[in-house]
Amino acid sequence: MGDTFPMAFSPPPGLRVLALCGSLRAASINASLLRAAVRLAPADTALTIFPLLGELPLFNPDLEAGPSRPPSVDALHAAVAGADALLIASPEYAHGVSGTIKNALDWLVSFEPFIHKPVALLNASPRAQHADAALRETLRTMSAGLVGETSFAVALLGARLDQAAMATSPAVAHAVGRAFGALRAECMRQRAAGVAVFPIGPADGPGN
Amino acid sequence: MGDTFPMAFSPPPGLRVLALCGSLRAASINASLLRAAVRLAPADTALTIFPLLGELPLFNPDLEAGPSRPPSVDALHAAVAGADALLIASPEYAHGVSGTIKNALDWLVSFEPFIHKPVALLNASPRAQHADAALRETLRTMSAGLVGETSFAVALLGARLDQAAMATSPAVAHAVGRAFGALRAECMRQRAAGVAVFPIGPADGPGN
Repeated sequence: MGDTFPMAFSPPPGLRVLALCGSLRAASINASLLRAAVRLAPADTALTIFPLLGELPLFNPDLEAGPSRPPSVDALHAAVAGADALLIASPEYAHGVSGTIKNALDWLVSFEPFIHKPVALLNASPRAQHADAALRETLRTMSAGLVGETSFAVALLGARLDQAAMATSPAVAHAVGRAFGALRAECMRQRAAGVAVFPIGPADGPGN
Repeated sequence: MGDTFPMAFSPPPGLRVLALCGSLRAASINASLLRAAVRLAPADTALTIFPLLGELPLFNPDLEAGPSRPPSVDALHAAVAGADALLIASPEYAHGVSGTIKNALDWLVSFEPFIHKPVALLNASPRAQHADAALRETLRTMSAGLVGETSFAVALLGARLDQAAMATSPAVAHAVGRAFGALRAECMRQRAAGVAVFPIGPADGPGN
């Protein structure tokens, strides 16, 4: 993050962050924000947007265990297990979470590698408080390593920034930079504390 | 409802209620509760459980208008437009709504015939307050005719009632009866007030 001071613990080399976007709209502000975050990621951080969130079936506990688990669920599990941290950006629909992001989280509730996973929430419409509060409550309930006392807000709704403008916006860089910094700090804190959270290879995950 | 006293307004003949279940689990308590409600419906009330909630794709605003709208969304729209009222039973997952029920509501946010539609919420796990409160907030935001100051609660989680026991349980009959009564009263109130909410035939709905 450009910090030139000595740090108490070494940062993890090559932080791998998985992004989840709660909107499937092609022109989604949240998707644009995450694409900007890919470009804004520090040199030693790789941000990958999970491409299959829209292909997940609706959560069905009966399909969760056993051979009938859908391949897209396996792909989500493997991607989460293999990531050091998660970055979520999701819209608010009718004062609630989007069904898309909640459905993805429903498939992760019983997935053990999710526990303690550092998670940062971006909030592109800070006036919308219901969905943000509901997501934070759900993530805490799922024992995520939720970072930030509040979500990382950047008021983009109505700002009409195109993709290029978003990637060069100081406000976006500030919010995204704080989110990456908080994720990195939480990874380091957990590593120093001996918390067993660092990527469990897909072959070792209990859900795989 | 067995009421033998004269009523100020005639009840609508043949109240058609559409049920939405927020769980896809075969042994879902909420699904069992709705199946019991089908059997407990008053003689002049027809309760139909919408069978395709699990087949809805994840909400995508880009697919909402135009010829690419999925057939299951058309089916949901037609069923909602053709119903006098809705009855919802849905679980709480990780202190949040189920992705399944929120996804269904996301497809109804911009569907005009949903506005003012009388909606009752059954709550099979009254200790779970987060999902219930979030659903009520969303339904109010969608301008539903949400009935009841609180949801119609019946503590079924852990009660281990089978289908037959549920249909003969006085607690279930009480909760379901109150929900049907409240839906009927709201339909009558809206009709008396001249609110334009009664079924718009699928052929006339703006989304069809």
